[in-house]
Amino acid sequence: MMKRKILLDESEIPTHWYNVIADMPNKPLPPLHPGTQEPIGPEALAPLFPMELIRQEVSGEKYIEIPDQVRDIYKLWRCTPMYRAHGLEAALDSPARIFYKYEGGSPAGSHKPNTAVAQAYYNKQEGVKKITTETGAGQWGSALSFACNVFDLACEVYMVKISYQQKPYRKSLMNTWGATVHASPTDQTQAGRKILEADPDSPGSLGIAISEAVEMAAADEQTKYALGSVLNHVLLHQTVVGQEAVKQMEMAGYLPDIVVAPFGGGSNFAGISFPFLRLNIEEGQKIRCIASEPASCPKLTRGVFRYDFGDTVGMTPLLPMYTLGHDFVPAPIHAGGLRYHGAGVIVSQLLKDQLIEAVAHKQLECFEAGVLFSKTEGIVPAPETTHAIATAIREAKRCKEEGKAETILIHLCGHGYFDLKAYEDYLAGKLVEHEVTSDEIKASLAKLDTPVPE
Amino acid sequence: MMKRKILLDESEIPTHWYNVIADMPNKPLPPLHPGTQEPIGPEALAPLFPMELIRQEVSGEKYIEIPDQVRDIYKLWRCTPMYRAHGLEAALDSPARIFYKYEGGSPAGSHKPNTAVAQAYYNKQEGVKKITTETGAGQWGSALSFACNVFDLACEVYMVKISYQQKPYRKSLMNTWGATVHASPTDQTQAGRKILEADPDSPGSLGIAISEAVEMAAADEQTKYALGSVLNHVLLHQTVVGQEAVKQMEMAGYLPDIVVAPFGGGSNFAGISFPFLRLNIEEGQKIRCIASEPASCPKLTRGVFRYDFGDTVGMTPLLPMYTLGHDFVPAPIHAGGLRYHGAGVIVSQLLKDQLIEAVAHKQLECFEAGVLFSKTEGIVPAPETTHAIATAIREAKRCKEEGKAETILIHLCGHGYFDLKAYEDYLAGKLVEHEVTSDEIKASLAKLDTPVPE
Repeated sequence: MMKRKILLDESEIPTHWYNVIADMPNKPLPPLHPGTQEPIGPEALAPLFPMELIRQEVSGEKYIEIPDQVRDIYKLWRCTPMYRAHGLEAALDSPARIFYKYEGGSPAGSHKPNTAVAQAYYNKQEGVKKITTETGAGQWGSALSFACNVFDLACEVYMVKISYQQKPYRKSLMNTWGATVHASPTDQTQAGRKILEADPDSPGSLGIAISEAVEMAAADEQTKYALGSVLNHVLLHQTVVGQEAVKQMEMAGYLPDIVVAPFGGGSNFAGISFPFLRLNIEEGQKIRCIASEPASCPKLTRGVFRYDFGDTVGMTPLLPMYTLGHDFVPAPIHAGGLRYHGAGVIVSQLLKDQLIEAVAHKQLECFEAGVLFSKTEGIVPAPETTHAIATAIREAKRCKEEGKAETILIHLCGHGYFDLKAYEDYLAGKLVEHEVTSDEIKASLAKLDTPVPE
Repeated sequence: MMKRKILLDESEIPTHWYNVIADMPNKPLPPLHPGTQEPIGPEALAPLFPMELIRQEVSGEKYIEIPDQVRDIYKLWRCTPMYRAHGLEAALDSPARIFYKYEGGSPAGSHKPNTAVAQAYYNKQEGVKKITTETGAGQWGSALSFACNVFDLACEVYMVKISYQQKPYRKSLMNTWGATVHASPTDQTQAGRKILEADPDSPGSLGIAISEAVEMAAADEQTKYALGSVLNHVLLHQTVVGQEAVKQMEMAGYLPDIVVAPFGGGSNFAGISFPFLRLNIEEGQKIRCIASEPASCPKLTRGVFRYDFGDTVGMTPLLPMYTLGHDFVPAPIHAGGLRYHGAGVIVSQLLKDQLIEAVAHKQLECFEAGVLFSKTEGIVPAPETTHAIATAIREAKRCKEEGKAETILIHLCGHGYFDLKAYEDYLAGKLVEHEVTSDEIKASLAKLDTPVPE
């Protein structure tokens, strides 16, 4: 009988996070002060983050130990299973071997708790009482709500308004774990009021919600801010996924030719791919690590490598990243978690150095992939996750054309149980494509007066 | 570090279902013909079910082999994990050890696919083209939709109207797997029209939906019917849960003193408890197996043991069961899967023989238990599932009072990701209690003119 799942016992949860910076040939450029445009040190982040997370943000150490209390909470859902996608393979009639690493079994239904628990833990250790954050589709907000509940911290979530309306169950989930949820933009912050004055019907964006959450955290000493992607320490925490996956692929007896993950800010791509990149760097393997982004928010495939703000209003340090411009407002696609104008610093440098690849998919191709996956593997993937499946299907079809039995590993980072309205609309033929023109991208980038990295 | 999870590899999926009938001191009484009230044989079920399922329905064999193709599909989510509820234990400050067997990781999010896959398989083997069924909260309907999709069968689901309105995502999930979903009562069947004539605003009930699904199946030779609970073969298929749990409790080093499961028609209670009952019968163990039912639909704790119809209209054979009367319409509690007037034949006989126990809980106590569980264990349980948690909490509190370190095993049969509106209402103080008076029960039972078992 065929083998479908490769499990690891909780005793095999990694003991350390893997820091890819240690292995990068070109290290990321330093962040700049938003006013002076001079390089800033870690102390500039102190109003927003606890010291240990700042230390991790700038660390060059290759491995950083995971605290026992964090690993203990990880056990609620880790190690996560690896599946061989026999059903999908049969439907595609491709010689490609397809595997997926499934993170949807976590309390919040995605990979996000991997960093949320770590961040809440360090905040608690340093005496913080409340954490603010933003959320797109709600994956990150619910993960942080769960984590704050575990460590008895208050949690305030600024949820992008379009997602707040599309995904009411996500709000209820956060409430069940004790968090407070606001539809962003709100009139409670200067950043929110500024947006609402310009456009009272603004659907919101991750960039705007970040501005609001950061403003609230900066205003109160016992309140800190947490980000669910983009930053180095967030990507770092996600590497438990890839470390487990390396072990599970060894158990399966195949080294992947391709590792693919959806791309929003970088955390789920980093989580699965960095431990495989290590194999490329250390052992000379040739694993293709592919980031899959939405065609309506194509910073990796159509953006520029430039210093830019992490938020919309311009409160954060300037970061060297692939970006569409910080006030680019992506179309309201259902993959809300991917509606972010920029890419994390590490991923941006890796792409610039051609150590990773990027592709873009339109919304309908992704939902088609999601429905096929649901029918063949039983798991309904989140709209974000369907992007990676769409890439895997493209690659499997190429393998069929070329007669190659390549091995493809998908990061199946979240389930779509909260996104079924989107599936219903897709099945009813109601979903529309959202395209972004070159002129729109040019116009957004033309507004940037930030430094160009050398 | 504490151990939270006990996993089993998919190679340990049970090879046989366990048929408790073989071990029962008093066998269930035979079903009666609805017209003649004479005992009927298996052939009477032939219009509705494939022959192999009828054979299983009346089998006295102790073990029935699970086909390889069914075990292969089981691998998509089985074996399911067993958890030690360290978080819940700490919150209760009880010496009780609490474990839970989690079935929410299946494609449909509950234990229901265990039988859905088996039923779809046998229907396919015997050339059936379409399966009809009813569903309450949608757990069963989505499980059967998934299973029919696997074996390329059409699937039509009659969903209780109140749940159809409360849980639109469940409908979308069924649609994603290719099923057609109707809000029951419909005007497509005689049974539905009869109900709508009497009450155009009928919220529906499982009994009514069964009548509709049965009527549609009986009318077409290539269409069969599938039930998600109550019947012997359905309970049989669920015993994979308990067999795994027996093994996992052995690995944990504790024999449970109490095994508790929510009770609707009996399938999830049977699934976890029958393999432990076997230990009581074969080895003289004293494991208390407790069925937890809603106080608003209390057939086990306040109903009578009587021949009654399985459906509302009176189309099914008469079954010897604990019942509130077949036209009892339960209050619209959120635990839709437990809104059924009767109990399966096997469970009813076991309760009559005092080999198992039953308790009832009101809705608010259950949601309070559900929120505590969400906060301490991270998993948001389905409203049905909260009943078992409420019982476990009661028993753990008793253990604390009595200073006893008993071991309690909960069947955590499904997640509540589709039920978050109910949690939101509970948190907002909007949920009301639904009580049923003795007079209402008496009135419902007084209408019964069915035989009284000796």
